[in-house]
Amino acid sequence: MHETMAATLDQAVEEIKRIRHEARILGDTTRPRWPMIVLKSPKGWTGPKVVDGLQIEGTFRAHQIPLAVDAEHPEHLKLLEEWLKSYRPEEIFEESGCLRSELAELAPNGERRMGANPHANGGLLLRDLIMPDFRNYAVNVPSPGSVQAADTHELGAFLRDVIRLNRGQRNFRIFGPDETLSNRLNAVFEATSRQWDARTQDNDEFLAPDGRVMEILSEHQCEGWLEGYLLTGRHGMFNSYEAFIHIIDSMFNQHAKWLKVSAELPWRREIASLNYLLASHVWQQAHNGFTHQDPGFIDHVVNKKASVVRVYLPPDANCLLSVWDHCLRSRHYVNVVIAGKYQAPQWLTMNAAVEHCAQGIGIWQWACSDRGAGPDVVMACCGDVPTLEALAAVSIMREHLPDLKIRVVNVVDLMKLQPQSEHPHGLSDEAFDAIFTEDKPVIFAFHGYPWLIHRLTYRRTNHDNFHVRGYKEEGTITTPFDMTVLNDLDRFHLVMDTIDRLPQTGDRGIHLKQLLKEKLIEHRQYIRKYGKDMPEILDWKWNHSA
Amino acid sequence: MHETMAATLDQAVEEIKRIRHEARILGDTTRPRWPMIVLKSPKGWTGPKVVDGLQIEGTFRAHQIPLAVDAEHPEHLKLLEEWLKSYRPEEIFEESGCLRSELAELAPNGERRMGANPHANGGLLLRDLIMPDFRNYAVNVPSPGSVQAADTHELGAFLRDVIRLNRGQRNFRIFGPDETLSNRLNAVFEATSRQWDARTQDNDEFLAPDGRVMEILSEHQCEGWLEGYLLTGRHGMFNSYEAFIHIIDSMFNQHAKWLKVSAELPWRREIASLNYLLASHVWQQAHNGFTHQDPGFIDHVVNKKASVVRVYLPPDANCLLSVWDHCLRSRHYVNVVIAGKYQAPQWLTMNAAVEHCAQGIGIWQWACSDRGAGPDVVMACCGDVPTLEALAAVSIMREHLPDLKIRVVNVVDLMKLQPQSEHPHGLSDEAFDAIFTEDKPVIFAFHGYPWLIHRLTYRRTNHDNFHVRGYKEEGTITTPFDMTVLNDLDRFHLVMDTIDRLPQTGDRGIHLKQLLKEKLIEHRQYIRKYGKDMPEILDWKWNHSA
Repeated sequence: MHETMAATLDQAVEEIKRIRHEARILGDTTRPRWPMIVLKSPKGWTGPKVVDGLQIEGTFRAHQIPLAVDAEHPEHLKLLEEWLKSYRPEEIFEESGCLRSELAELAPNGERRMGANPHANGGLLLRDLIMPDFRNYAVNVPSPGSVQAADTHELGAFLRDVIRLNRGQRNFRIFGPDETLSNRLNAVFEATSRQWDARTQDNDEFLAPDGRVMEILSEHQCEGWLEGYLLTGRHGMFNSYEAFIHIIDSMFNQHAKWLKVSAELPWRREIASLNYLLASHVWQQAHNGFTHQDPGFIDHVVNKKASVVRVYLPPDANCLLSVWDHCLRSRHYVNVVIAGKYQAPQWLTMNAAVEHCAQGIGIWQWACSDRGAGPDVVMACCGDVPTLEALAAVSIMREHLPDLKIRVVNVVDLMKLQPQSEHPHGLSDEAFDAIFTEDKPVIFAFHGYPWLIHRLTYRRTNHDNFHVRGYKEEGTITTPFDMTVLNDLDRFHLVMDTIDRLPQTGDRGIHLKQLLKEKLIEHRQYIRKYGKDMPEILDWKWNHSA
Repeated sequence: MHETMAATLDQAVEEIKRIRHEARILGDTTRPRWPMIVLKSPKGWTGPKVVDGLQIEGTFRAHQIPLAVDAEHPEHLKLLEEWLKSYRPEEIFEESGCLRSELAELAPNGERRMGANPHANGGLLLRDLIMPDFRNYAVNVPSPGSVQAADTHELGAFLRDVIRLNRGQRNFRIFGPDETLSNRLNAVFEATSRQWDARTQDNDEFLAPDGRVMEILSEHQCEGWLEGYLLTGRHGMFNSYEAFIHIIDSMFNQHAKWLKVSAELPWRREIASLNYLLASHVWQQAHNGFTHQDPGFIDHVVNKKASVVRVYLPPDANCLLSVWDHCLRSRHYVNVVIAGKYQAPQWLTMNAAVEHCAQGIGIWQWACSDRGAGPDVVMACCGDVPTLEALAAVSIMREHLPDLKIRVVNVVDLMKLQPQSEHPHGLSDEAFDAIFTEDKPVIFAFHGYPWLIHRLTYRRTNHDNFHVRGYKEEGTITTPFDMTVLNDLDRFHLVMDTIDRLPQTGDRGIHLKQLLKEKLIEHRQYIRKYGKDMPEILDWKWNHSA
């Protein structure tokens, strides 16, 4: 059987060589029939055949311990001896107990050893990506909110050039379940195609045998491909709908566990990070409805070791570019990045974005009205849609409650919120208190489930004053703004929440709250009648000077 | 094409009738070849064929909106008109715009209407299970900790009789990925077999064409089968390894969303709950190692609507029986139950278990030393292994720090911890404070990730005094007790944590801590040498009188 197996392997290797020769030298790239070995062997082959009158070899009983040798089964000792002797140890080992040297010599040497093969220690083969300067893809933002752009669309141009620059090294790929266009990364198809070596038809688009985009409508397949690609020393990314990335929760678990354990082994080299781009996120599923709304992947991710997991929620395109550049350069992490794909207001110049992302969290001074004094309230936001709603809420308050001192905080790097003792990115308590104050109300507009913010901040000084709004599992097919209304994350609810925490807003606050309640009714009536959001929502612009 | 389709459907229905007749009347139960219709039709069939010179029908371009009719594309209006007229509305509708009555009459009536078919509203077909009295399966517990039993093994006898009693109604099934035996539910095979209508071989066990156990090593398949079974008005359960139930995270999401939305529709009847039995849990994977350790499914579950999700962690077999009886009787929930499968100390008599599970959380008076006075510390526990370790910690303290007033709290129903406003099971703040005090340290030994307890309790009065130990993603192949040591959940760490929070333990506390540090070193040396836990761990017994 060993000879048959060896001969079959040789035959398969020869066949692979022939196919490669025909493709690489003779240029025949039609889809080959790769060799495949089907080995059918009895379960528990060469183990004990029959124990206590029951067939073991070749049956389900060979699955775990075939033979219990203990005080209750002394008669099994003889069976164990027979079994072990069936391997003829006297032919394999010297008298001293050592493996016979002529057998030891048969094993491969050096890098041919299974545990030393560089393909099984991909970090040895890893070459840095040649990176374009992400600043060259900046959206020009003359003032906060003055222009619109689709964040992932801008990222597409950067990724296109990553593909171009690394064409020679052939070590970067984009994986995803048929979402490259749907997630607006269109520009990558200016530089490459989907890899495809099967039959093509008229009207097919962007298919080629040397494409760098791997698409298949199976998140499992994409995740498996990407993990294998990273483990063998290459770079890549997975772009997916946010709700459906849960499909690979269990596979992510195993990869994160592998990263944690392998980082403890000195001979294991670091591999490229596993980068998830979750576009088509929970707040952009107004048309697909409730089934497509689930921001819980980050809840799942943060349960894994802090040394391995990173989560970013860039509020605009320039921040996304800066974050993504960082992720592609990083090693041995799982990076989860959540980004919008629709036209949305842009807040930061590229310089400001780089600075903001380097800090991971920051006070947006241009949006604050608390300069020169302490704030009455902190409006915090994390995620593109919550940032828009929080700023719209601030603008309502700056108009109607002009005396209120408002501080605006934006979070890009979610792990900044955790204590330093829990995550390497965590802010010190002093830095955290400086941003969020020790005693002022914090109204926090969050992309995901609101309790995740509490889980990250419960040890912070001011935690009792944190009031978080986020997705609370309410949704349907409706307008984009109504999605935020259904979950109390909209600008009107945020203002009302703030007034509730600030008795000093007095009668002005009470009147404003009444006005906003009426706005919400008006909103509901308007969307029922017109099927789209009110013009004042669609046309809203930030118009406060810094 | 419509005629061809109708004729083909008729043919398939006739074939199904023939197969049923042969099986039910003539007794031929060999696996039939069920009819299968393969329909291959062009994508976007009968839609616009060509738009702007590009082929639409039969290509990927037919996937979403085939034709944009708006201010920028006025020329498309004519295409739209042609497309819609191709359905010949003048033959379908009256002048008045109504559907022609001779066509309307073709549609089925009453329960034959698609939306009124009872198989699509399974609650209409649902019949209560005939339930044995779970008290009859009680483990006899003369005093707490005096006997051992394997919790799921005891449950197996109860499930066996559920199967027997409902044989006539044929409305209960057990689903799982080949774990019915591995999870110790062996007794069910006294009453039934695995359903199997393919070929059998010598040495096959527990296979039959009318088996009520559905096993396949695909969690996806099991979940899908069970969901379909419940949705069509039957009862069932899914038993799985805890770590690998994440494989169906995404499917659970959709089922939970369906339950939430359908509960809002008055014409939808409630269906049986989806019951997960997660045995082979994180603390029982000492031999399988790190890959098999993940208690995060409950973190995932509690993100869904509180009206739909329930989580139970029974500490012993009698509690498991009481909880499972409740789950099988419940409607329209997802119940997650985590239970041990190995021999472990039993704590409560059946009467005590019923009372404890009805409350969902309780002070275990027999373990407390704070009666007649307020406690110095609350030792809380949730889950079978944490309960064992917490009680062992209490026994150490009662021996070495006899003046300490210790209260022992056990949690079966995890949702009791949430505020009443967040979950229907949530304790009132008054009841919570009465159990956990307003100001005493709470050392909480938890089955899952420790931060889940913080996420559930962050609004409680005494939350700042909660110190939770649980799985913190440390594991390998080691001894069962060492698994708790690696995660600081073991009895020694729990005592040391308590001493740290109680300065009044003074020098006695300091000395005890030193002793326990030495114990931990002794433990490490012992398991390295002998490959199993120290006798004092294996043989430990609760021996305090109430």
